[in-house]
Amino acid sequence: MNKNIDFYFDFSSSYAYLAQHRIQQLAEELELDINWKPFALGAIFKALGHAPPKPESTKGRYIWKDVERGAAEMNLPFHWPDPFPFNSIPAARMFYALQATQSPERAIEWAQAVFKSSYGQGLDCSDPGVLMKLAEQLGHPGEELLAASQQEEVKSQLKEVTGEADALGVFGSPTFFLDGEMFWGADRIDLIERRITTARSA
Amino acid sequence: MNKNIDFYFDFSSSYAYLAQHRIQQLAEELELDINWKPFALGAIFKALGHAPPKPESTKGRYIWKDVERGAAEMNLPFHWPDPFPFNSIPAARMFYALQATQSPERAIEWAQAVFKSSYGQGLDCSDPGVLMKLAEQLGHPGEELLAASQQEEVKSQLKEVTGEADALGVFGSPTFFLDGEMFWGADRIDLIERRITTARSA
Repeated sequence: MNKNIDFYFDFSSSYAYLAQHRIQQLAEELELDINWKPFALGAIFKALGHAPPKPESTKGRYIWKDVERGAAEMNLPFHWPDPFPFNSIPAARMFYALQATQSPERAIEWAQAVFKSSYGQGLDCSDPGVLMKLAEQLGHPGEELLAASQQEEVKSQLKEVTGEADALGVFGSPTFFLDGEMFWGADRIDLIERRITTARSA
Repeated sequence: MNKNIDFYFDFSSSYAYLAQHRIQQLAEELELDINWKPFALGAIFKALGHAPPKPESTKGRYIWKDVERGAAEMNLPFHWPDPFPFNSIPAARMFYALQATQSPERAIEWAQAVFKSSYGQGLDCSDPGVLMKLAEQLGHPGEELLAASQQEEVKSQLKEVTGEADALGVFGSPTFFLDGEMFWGADRIDLIERRITTARSA
């Protein structure tokens, strides 16, 4: 045990960008299996009556800086994508299309590439043209993958994971589960690390 | 420089309870001066149209557990006060009454005692009777202090600090400022620590 982590995230979440970098490092250090689960946070927000803080609000401005200094501390390239926030549904569907038609590993590679392009380079990863080009850079047939991502089974898969997250009480991104325990936020990865190292040394 | 930290908090904030313990430890380790500034978060929430998550909501339930495990990790006694949330205005006014009539040190001692009684022991620190008894345990004349806390200058002091927090962009509790940089949340104290140790070693 203490080996499998479920990683629920929305591609448009800036803290998920920080988290995916950090959790990968931790996975390597501690030999963990990370189960990447992109979901549609917007649907959960809608059901809960939540809204992300507006970028021009005091909280929005603070978070803006907090994310930037978090990336800087990790020496992680960071550019706010334009537009922000962006529609993350197409990228998430392409993830599940790759998972179904290729392999979980290639889907994870896709997720990492999407984060690198959006928050790493500031590209608009809601744009199908950008996503197709990205797919081709990874050796996938862009148009085919885009078409596959529009199929009902793939759309249903995203809805299913979103419903699963909702049922588990997920209300934000990123959210992790370790042995049934929930951890919300990139800043809880340190606690996950302590949980695992403590359990293993016990 | 890198010595003074402004610590804005609301007595009814559970994360402020964790933070006040941790920031005191850090203050001792790094020889920092902590400027304790209780404020009325409710007034800022009202102005911003924010509300704390309801205890029975998914976010409320998560935060409940997150605070408890945070206290457990620090070996800090923890009991949810009843009622929760509670009216923190009387305790904050008594802080400023002590600051004005006694000394900043005795006001800090008061703040620590209020946190210990509320989140440490589960007492109702919105109750004037509880607060008077607490004051007497610290060697203050309870009734006199309560009367002093009702005076206009003291009430104004709390309003002033709340306005100051609002002007600085504070939207939650606890919030820290170090050299003009804002840090929101008990979980940002680690970052404050890294900022200080990095600056001092440079």
